[in-house]
Amino acid sequence: MYSKDTIAAISTAVGDGGIGIVRVSGPEAIKVVNKIFKSYGKKKGLTEADTYTAHYGHIIEPKEEQVVDEVVCLVMKSPRTYTKEDVVEIDCHGGSIPLQKILELVLKVGARLAEPGEFTKRAFLNGRIDLSQAEAVMDVITSQTEAGLEIAMDQLEGGLSGQVSEIRQKLIKLLAHLEASIDFPEDEIEDFTIDEVGERVAKIIEMIEKLLATSKRGKIVKEGVQTAIIGKPNVGKSSLLNAMLQENRAIVTDVPGTTRDVIEEVINLDGVPLKIMDTAGIRKTEDEVEKIGVERSQKFLKRADLILLVLDAHQGITEEDERIINLVTDKDTIIVVNKTDLTSNLDLDELQERIDNVQIVKTAATERVGIKKLEDLILEMVFAGKVKATDQTVVTNMRHKEALEAAHENMLTVQETVGQGLPADFVTIDLKAALEELGKITGNTLGEDIIDQIFADFCLGK
Amino acid sequence: MYSKDTIAAISTAVGDGGIGIVRVSGPEAIKVVNKIFKSYGKKKGLTEADTYTAHYGHIIEPKEEQVVDEVVCLVMKSPRTYTKEDVVEIDCHGGSIPLQKILELVLKVGARLAEPGEFTKRAFLNGRIDLSQAEAVMDVITSQTEAGLEIAMDQLEGGLSGQVSEIRQKLIKLLAHLEASIDFPEDEIEDFTIDEVGERVAKIIEMIEKLLATSKRGKIVKEGVQTAIIGKPNVGKSSLLNAMLQENRAIVTDVPGTTRDVIEEVINLDGVPLKIMDTAGIRKTEDEVEKIGVERSQKFLKRADLILLVLDAHQGITEEDERIINLVTDKDTIIVVNKTDLTSNLDLDELQERIDNVQIVKTAATERVGIKKLEDLILEMVFAGKVKATDQTVVTNMRHKEALEAAHENMLTVQETVGQGLPADFVTIDLKAALEELGKITGNTLGEDIIDQIFADFCLGK
Repeated sequence: MYSKDTIAAISTAVGDGGIGIVRVSGPEAIKVVNKIFKSYGKKKGLTEADTYTAHYGHIIEPKEEQVVDEVVCLVMKSPRTYTKEDVVEIDCHGGSIPLQKILELVLKVGARLAEPGEFTKRAFLNGRIDLSQAEAVMDVITSQTEAGLEIAMDQLEGGLSGQVSEIRQKLIKLLAHLEASIDFPEDEIEDFTIDEVGERVAKIIEMIEKLLATSKRGKIVKEGVQTAIIGKPNVGKSSLLNAMLQENRAIVTDVPGTTRDVIEEVINLDGVPLKIMDTAGIRKTEDEVEKIGVERSQKFLKRADLILLVLDAHQGITEEDERIINLVTDKDTIIVVNKTDLTSNLDLDELQERIDNVQIVKTAATERVGIKKLEDLILEMVFAGKVKATDQTVVTNMRHKEALEAAHENMLTVQETVGQGLPADFVTIDLKAALEELGKITGNTLGEDIIDQIFADFCLGK
Repeated sequence: MYSKDTIAAISTAVGDGGIGIVRVSGPEAIKVVNKIFKSYGKKKGLTEADTYTAHYGHIIEPKEEQVVDEVVCLVMKSPRTYTKEDVVEIDCHGGSIPLQKILELVLKVGARLAEPGEFTKRAFLNGRIDLSQAEAVMDVITSQTEAGLEIAMDQLEGGLSGQVSEIRQKLIKLLAHLEASIDFPEDEIEDFTIDEVGERVAKIIEMIEKLLATSKRGKIVKEGVQTAIIGKPNVGKSSLLNAMLQENRAIVTDVPGTTRDVIEEVINLDGVPLKIMDTAGIRKTEDEVEKIGVERSQKFLKRADLILLVLDAHQGITEEDERIINLVTDKDTIIVVNKTDLTSNLDLDELQERIDNVQIVKTAATERVGIKKLEDLILEMVFAGKVKATDQTVVTNMRHKEALEAAHENMLTVQETVGQGLPADFVTIDLKAALEELGKITGNTLGEDIIDQIFADFCLGK
């Protein structure tokens, strides 16, 4: 599973930047980079460098002695490095050609191109971090709000690992006692009473449930809430979006996908990334009124977790509104009655009566009236009454959640078996299963293929 | 002009990457970072660190003692650094939130957000590099081919500076002699004969001309050749593009601009970036035949340096072809007669006769026949017979070219004056002007505002 060769990759983001980094890791890392590095002022080579020292010089095409770039090489020696192997980071100019050229040279003189996530995989396989910590690395990088970063850092620092380990320790201890009582029933082993076993099982279930309870918040903070603002033309969708953008830090991101057109504006709503679906196309063709309408709304609705349906208070409800209202089905929806600064021709009571399971909020987006109320309503809906602020460990990863749920199932079976007064060996099977499930989170009990799969989703160079 | 405060910026490219860097430079750089850095294992702080050493630890939000990220801090002390000031590079996780959060903290505890190019500007103002070298930094980063990188690195290493300085030294020496002969006409100064002055002036002119002669190649290698592939639908434009892409390393880049749609495929043709104009829109609506045609070709032609006009040998010349052929005016054009693997219904001789100043090449793009010949023809046309391969210094920067041209003008006037046998003081005015023009390249004789303008075009963090 773990090949001890030397790997290399561009580790900084794609695109032009001031600085870029080519990272090299493995037993030959220092030797490999030294072949193409010429220290400034003919100082000693990298092979004689101390750990955690940096060296200024040039990357040289060794055959033609052509200067490729001006660099600083950072030498970090095993075992106190990211991968626990020897690591060299080549700090170079951050353009794609210098980065590609340096990577090419490093590969030519003895390194292999790293697979996505292979540096972090080595950190895991070499025992520096467990699997949940390795997964947190990508969560740190792709975090969308400070709240998301804090939760990911807690996991990276071992917050989740610690709690899972604690539960696993309790399970192992319980198992050991029960197995001893099975194997040596005559011995003087300090045996648990049924009540004591029941208490311990209940405690473990409680701990798992406490972790599981954080996962709704975890999912929201990590993945954000896909939000669609729909409504017929000129009801003020853009004004509403702008009003929300102005008060909250917004990030505009490209969404990789089939259509190049789709962009997403992410509003950071109290730590929750509200992903507003929008397309460049919509912006561009805002005038082409005939193209906007039911069809486009339908497309958005499919992908949305949360729908903001905008109506025009002044204009009242038109036929086109009716058609859009009818599209809204079972998803979380807030009806935004906009333009309330103008005379209203819309009967709110009648509207509420017709669609009674939907919340209505009044706004005058251009005046920024009602925006705060709308945002509070969104947060309330998103968290569905759950406690929001927390500095505890939060489960954000679906894989972790599923393992916790499976372990929870196993423990409920244990509880039932214990309640029925069945002998210890009936109990141990499910205890072992729970232990195995929890081990999947930290990586103790996972197959090679699944581990490979997890790291394959990492970005290149990490 | 040079404020001695401490500046900071994100120095890696925007986007998610394994590693990101926040760079801090200035007298307080180490002290500032140390305020939010907690070394692993409670080792000594950064303020006690040796130069060119790296330090593993955490960035901590100092008020709430919240762990923000796991980092390696690289400490480099004045004067042997990029800016010649104290520099700290914070290597952190390369996501936008960790990078933004760390930058925010650094700014909070005493640094100022760097302006675009301010790190490099300090390197220039502190005398580590001259202005042409500073400008080469951006050329290294934005280079589009290895040839472009080599030329930029030569400039960064002082190739151009050296040659310009050499010319300036010759000018200064000549000036000094001439001025001495003006000021002390009676003295025993070793005077030049008119012939000697003439020789020296000719030598200087020759050196300037030699540099200027490289600028056509410089512009092509640096900026690339805007190339439009035009023709009616189904003549094989895409096949032609694909055939060229397959044999040459291609880079697909977003072109910043008003339309999000426009993308550019850059074919590296022997070091020349051939920028093929294409739009996502065209790809998408390839089927909407009616939309492709004269109108779109017209739009492309306006921006192109080089036009590849594709015809279908099998189909012969249709009315639509005629209309497109008529669009081609004074730009470099190659007519590509494609599908020559099928029976030809196109009279090449007749075509050549009609448009005799245009080269014709026959291809069968799907079979990759004729592609090499087309590429050779493109290179020939682009370089217009000029020597291509070179390891000499190449002028790539328009600003440098203009300064050289102005200096050249001045020197021609000097030559004329000398030829007319006019007294030395008539000559010195133009010599001084030439000296000043050349000084603009290295930055010796440039105003603050122009220097500011040059660095304002740099990317952030450099």
